[in-house]
Order: sequence, then structure tokens, then C-alpha cells
Amino acid sequence: VTRLVVIGGSDAGVSACLQAREVDPAVEATMVLADDYPNYSICGLPMFLGGEVTDWHSLAHRTREELAAAGIEVRTKTRALAVDPRARTVRTAGPEGEADMPYDRLVIATGAEPVRPPIPGIDHEGVFLLHSVDDALAIDAFLATRAPERAIIVGAGYIGCEMADALTRRGLAVTLMEQAPAVLPTVDPQLGGILGERMGRQGVEVLAGVRVEAIERTRLRLRVQAAGGLRRTADMVLVVAGVRPVTDLARGLGLELGVRGAIRVGRGMQTPVPNVWAAGDCVETWHRLLRRPTYLPLGTTAHKQGRIAGENALGGGRVYEGTLGTQVVKVFDTVVGRTGLSEAEARLEGWDAVTAELTTWDHKVYYPGAQALHIRIVADRASGLLLGGQILGRQPSEVAKRVDVLAVALHHAMSVDAVSDLDLSYTPPLSSPWDPVQMATQAWRGRFPATP
Amino acid sequence: VTRLVVIGGSDAGVSACLQAREVDPAVEATMVLADDYPNYSICGLPMFLGGEVTDWHSLAHRTREELAAAGIEVRTKTRALAVDPRARTVRTAGPEGEADMPYDRLVIATGAEPVRPPIPGIDHEGVFLLHSVDDALAIDAFLATRAPERAIIVGAGYIGCEMADALTRRGLAVTLMEQAPAVLPTVDPQLGGILGERMGRQGVEVLAGVRVEAIERTRLRLRVQAAGGLRRTADMVLVVAGVRPVTDLARGLGLELGVRGAIRVGRGMQTPVPNVWAAGDCVETWHRLLRRPTYLPLGTTAHKQGRIAGENALGGGRVYEGTLGTQVVKVFDTVVGRTGLSEAEARLEGWDAVTAELTTWDHKVYYPGAQALHIRIVADRASGLLLGGQILGRQPSEVAKRVDVLAVALHHAMSVDAVSDLDLSYTPPLSSPWDPVQMATQAWRGRFPATP
Repeated sequence: VTRLVVIGGSDAGVSACLQAREVDPAVEATMVLADDYPNYSICGLPMFLGGEVTDWHSLAHRTREELAAAGIEVRTKTRALAVDPRARTVRTAGPEGEADMPYDRLVIATGAEPVRPPIPGIDHEGVFLLHSVDDALAIDAFLATRAPERAIIVGAGYIGCEMADALTRRGLAVTLMEQAPAVLPTVDPQLGGILGERMGRQGVEVLAGVRVEAIERTRLRLRVQAAGGLRRTADMVLVVAGVRPVTDLARGLGLELGVRGAIRVGRGMQTPVPNVWAAGDCVETWHRLLRRPTYLPLGTTAHKQGRIAGENALGGGRVYEGTLGTQVVKVFDTVVGRTGLSEAEARLEGWDAVTAELTTWDHKVYYPGAQALHIRIVADRASGLLLGGQILGRQPSEVAKRVDVLAVALHHAMSVDAVSDLDLSYTPPLSSPWDPVQMATQAWRGRFPATP
Repeated sequence: VTRLVVIGGSDAGVSACLQAREVDPAVEATMVLADDYPNYSICGLPMFLGGEVTDWHSLAHRTREELAAAGIEVRTKTRALAVDPRARTVRTAGPEGEADMPYDRLVIATGAEPVRPPIPGIDHEGVFLLHSVDDALAIDAFLATRAPERAIIVGAGYIGCEMADALTRRGLAVTLMEQAPAVLPTVDPQLGGILGERMGRQGVEVLAGVRVEAIERTRLRLRVQAAGGLRRTADMVLVVAGVRPVTDLARGLGLELGVRGAIRVGRGMQTPVPNVWAAGDCVETWHRLLRRPTYLPLGTTAHKQGRIAGENALGGGRVYEGTLGTQVVKVFDTVVGRTGLSEAEARLEGWDAVTAELTTWDHKVYYPGAQALHIRIVADRASGLLLGGQILGRQPSEVAKRVDVLAVALHHAMSVDAVSDLDLSYTPPLSSPWDPVQMATQAWRGRFPATP
């Protein structure tokens, strides 16, 4: 019987265990996690804090009973201290003390931790980071017991924007500060600008192009100082500045670290150490368009990589086909998504990337409820190769799955012209005979005609 | 200056004119149509009759002013009687009598007409077909002046189901009769059955497996007689039994007719007659999976084929990449879509096609508003080649664009396993880390494991 040990209890770890059990139902799969929350959807934490998700326990993708039923032994509150690859053991420290756990195959899925930017005053009481369930419970307790009236969020990435929505729902007056020229800097500022305006209409004070210099405690409150003399006062501050890979264990094993300090792995998620694989937010991510590793810690990727690690650890030969950086976020009733590269990213790689933006309706405008979609298409000028797409629209205009249509097109290295060949669905309440994504690729071609 | 004449004023015809003008802004494009409604969205007629679209004029994809601004000369109420390919003229009969219209390049886009099944009594007053704007105006006038209370719809395809929704909205009691074992026979009866039940809950009397034998006039009403003694009485009857290609002009030109009597064309939409192309509901449709022509008259296809005909008529070399039969319909708040082949269709072609159905949530169930999606995946047992997909769900669960994700996968001949490699978007309010379509392809693989 093969003993599979997985270190990490989130998306990659659970996916590895599940797939290993799928491939070999006899495998003994043990999952070791430092906290008490196996298989939690950390993407759902803002929705819990906003009150849309009322019971945080429901954030578990699978309950402990479901994990047990799937044949996974779960060891919570257990830290993996070190791996001995020759003895094939993991030194663990758990509720019953330290022990050596033997393995035949090991998957490292230690995930990521929030970046704590070097802002003076970040350790003041009332200043929070948000990455783990414990972080969320601490914020929720603060909201419940201190009844803060004003919050400042530093960082307007996905979680910052979601938390601006969430805290507004909880009744707080929210100021959102972002260093980049517009919120949601993972999309172009044209779309970030629209989102920022809409957040403003929901009552959020959006301050973009602002560099935070310090967080100070006044007698009763917190004051955030930004460059140029800008200051705001609030009862709580949330700092959301991205994540970095957790790699202590991997470093102890002598594993090479690559982009942004993430563990270097092969496309089969293998490490150079025999019998050791790694997956999820702690590893580099192969980018399908760039043809090289990046660092893009996302739940979707962690699931894919974990599944591959679990299969390959049991002798499989699956290859990770690469990320396109596909992401989507819902903020109030606006949905923004992207896939592939922005023009700026593609230019850095040497493509002659150009962008066309089209604003059109999500469905035939004669049918009630049509919403404007803002679609940006990036492609290579000479070849017409599609490089990326970004879409912003209101619910329910199928923004997310329209991004995915472009993602599948990118997966197959389609040209903007070939997108018009796709047989996409149409009915007047839901689309147009040319889907908006096809109108947008045609608009790109109209703006950048092929040279004969 | 090239003179392009297009016969037909609907999707394919307008697309041909627009693309020709795009390729060569100097082309003289003239569009000849028999009725008075250039570029109307006939897919929107049920929504007009249901009252959701209040002004039927808004059903025009483009107004006459917009067509004129695009440089298209529109000749309404003008029938094309015959083509003389040697003289390169079209004999027309219009408001000012008969004339010979010269052309350099001709596109035939004469569309389709509704099938009039040989049901005794189909010509009674109060019995309607529905395909054209005039048909819709006649029904609307009947609804307005006669205030019918009960309607019987014969045929539960896309339009039949949409009209059951529409007439229910207009306050009529509707009986929907369908010969197949379930409504919407273009999808599997498992999904048609769910749709039929939901229509029933909206007050529609759904009678599937019913063969209509006659329509009789009683003193005040219409009585529909079906096999086995079933009968229903109503104030109006709508017969929607599909369409057939309009090919009189093509036959006069000696063009070969193929599947279901549609005009045989090459994949560049060319006919064997020099300088003559044909496109839209009057021609055969190349099927990308079957690798042979079929007849699948759809607006999406007509737009694509018309665009190709217009480009190629001006010297282009575009090839129609083929249909996947992608279709979607919204009936009340339920959306049903399909792409590719059903198991039965694929088996007829020699594939060892098998289906797995998965019912799952459109997004993380912890976030409010999760809707069940019923997803059926068809693939070849030995190779795992994806052959088709069908999805049913309630609005707003992005059914249509999820069908499209599968359509793009089919376009690229992906396997069910490879669908798991797609980098699709995720946020808890809109999906899961594995999108439901990926869960469904994984469920297919779970049910039909690969043989080593």
C-alpha cells in the first residue's frame, strides 16, 4: 500500500489527495495542515465578512466527514517541521507532540501567506491582514464587538475591492487606497477606472494613485498618512497587498526557489527530490502564453496543479498545461474579468501588442435588461494572434463565462479572425448573432486592418 | 466599381453586404428583398408577441438609416424572379414593375420558409404559422382584436417553447403539443422533461408524445384532434414545425440541392455558377464534427456564412469552419442550450458515444442564489473525444456561455480530459474552482474510466 502524505490542507493539498485516491483507491492519503480549517474556500472570506455568507463553516468546499468518506486522513493543527528525503519521513508537531510521519510519496502544498508591507504602524491594534480563516474571524469579531464606523482599505486588488464591497454592506464608510492609477490594477486602468467610479457611486471613497506612508494611532482611531499630505482617519485598517509563497519546508529540503521565491517545479509538478511533488500557491506557475514560469497564486490553478501532483505521485504522467491568468471578480453588481496578457505585459515579451476596446450590449437591446459590456481585446498586430481579453459588465451579463470563451480561444492560440469562426450560442435575451466577444475581435480587426 | 447584388434582406444578406463594403468600400451593394423588413431579428418575434419587446420596429438589427449609412442600397417589396448568369442580371418585380438588375457578383440569401405540415384544417382562420414579421403582426392583431383566451401550440421546438412562454405572458391558457417524447427534442428527453415540468408549473399544459391529426372548426372555436382520441379546444392554434429552404431562384439557375433540399455550396459559400455565392437558411451547412453538410438554419450561421460570401464575392478566400449546432433558448426563467452531437446523433455516425449527466451548482453553494445546472456530456468511449454538451439551468447561471465554453472546446476537438486543463475564471458568486463544465467532463471520465 502506498502512503501519500500531503502537507497543506487547502485547494492543492485536497486536490492531490482526491486525485490520488481516484487513481488508486488503495492509497493511504494523509493530509497535514497547520490550522484547523481543511479545504476552506479562502476566496469566500470577503463574502462572509460582508454578511452574504452567514455561516463561515459553509465555506468548506468539503466537510471533514466528506474528506473522511473520500478516504483522506486529516491531521489538523499539525505543523510539518522538516522532511528527511532519505528516510522518507516528515517531522511533524501536532496536538500530541512531535513525530516522524513516514511517506512513500510526498506532496508539498504549503500555500501562500499575505505580504506584510513595511508600512510603519502596520502592527497597531485595528490593523488587519486578510488571508486565512483566522484572519477573517478576527475581523468579524472586531466588527461585532467594536462596531467600527469607518474603514480604510490599503490595496485595491481583487480582495481589496471585494472587501470594500463587503464592509460597505456591513454598514461601514469605506475608503479604498491604491498605489496604481486605478483600482484593480490587474486589468487596464480604463476598466479599473469604470469600476472605481461605480464603487464611488456605492459610497466607497476611492483614492487611486496614492502611496501609503504610515499608519498612526490617534487617541481613539487610526490615521493613514499617504504621500503628498493626504490623510484619512478610521476605526479599522485592512492591508491587502498580495501574497507570497510559504517555502520554509521546501528550503529545508534544498529545493530551488524561482519567480517571486516560489518553489521551482517541473510541468508534472515534480521536484528534483525523489518522491516529492509540490503544487499550489507555494510553487511557480507555468504560463501558457509566456512559455515560462510565473507566480500567479489562484484557487483554480491550485486545484489543477494539486490534481496533477496527486496523479503523478501515483505514477501518472499528467502535464500542467499552463495558466492564462484567467481571473474574475464581482464587486457590488459589477463583474470584471481578464484572461491572457495585457498590452503592457505582451509588449514586455516582445509582441507588437495593440488593444481595441468595444462597448456593446450583452444581448439584443430590444429585449429588456440589456447591459453594457466593455471588452478589451489584445492581439499581435502583424499576426493577429489573440493575446488577451478583459471584460467589465453588470450582473447578469455572463461576463465571467465570456472571459472563458476567450480563455479557451487563447488556450488554442487562435487569431482574432478565427474567433469569428466559433459557433457560439445565441438567443435575443442572452446574446447577439455575433457574440459580444466576436464583435470585439472584429472591432480589433477593424481598427488594425491586416496588411496585404 | 464592382456591383454586388444580394437577394434576401435578412441575416445572411445583410452580413454579405456589410462585409463586402468592409473589404472594398467602393463596392456598390444592393440588397433586394421581397418583404418590407430588412435586417429584422426574426428570433425576436416571440419576445414581441409576449410583450417583452413593446415596439416591433426595434427588432431591426439595423435601421434603414443605418443600412444606408453603411452604403447598402435596399430595395424592399421586390421579388427576384430569375437570374441570367450569362447576362449577369437579376429579373426583379418591384413597386415600379419588372426590371433587369445587372450584377458583377451575386449572393443568394433567400432564407427559409415555415413548414406547413399536411394537417387537415391547417388553413382555418385562427391557425397561424410563425416565421416572418408579417406572420407576427397577424398574430399580434388577432390577439389584440379577438382577445383569445386559449391557445394550442403544435410543435415544441425552440419557437414553440418560446411562444408557450410568450402567450402565457399575454394571459392566454396555453396547451403545447409535441410528437416527440419530451419538449425541445433538439436536446435529450432528460432535459426536455425538466423543461416541460417547469413549463407546466407556469401553467402551460404540456402534452408530449402526441401526434396531431386534424384541426377542426367548431361554431366558435378550433379543436385539435390528436391520435388516440386526445382533443383540445382553443381560440387560436399556432403550428410551428420547423422551416425549409427557399430555393426557387437557385433551382431556376440549375443549382444542385442537397440535404433537406438546401442549396449545395462549397465551404467558401460559392456555387458552381460563376460569380454566384449563396449563404444562410437557404443553403447546406457544413458540420465541423460530422465533416459533411447538414441543414441547420440558424441566425448565427447565417451571419457567418453571409460574411464569408460577401468577402469571397469580392475576391477573398475565407472558408466556413462549420457549425457545431450550438443553440440556446430561454423559456420563462429556464435556459437550455446544446452544442455538438447528442449521443444518438453521434452513434449514427459510428462513434461509441456515451453520456454522463451531472447536476451541480452554478456557483459555490455558500454564496446566495446558487442554481442547479444539469449538464450532459457526450464523448467517445475509447478515445475520450468530446462530442457534445447540453446544459439546463435557471437564469442567471450563465448557461449560454457555459455551452459556448464547450463549443470552443469542440471546435478544437478536445478530449474530455483536456477540458480540465482549461484556465477558466472563478469567483465564489459565479463559479467554482473547477467550473461546472469541468466537473461534468470529470464526471464523464469517472463514469467511463480510461482502459489502460
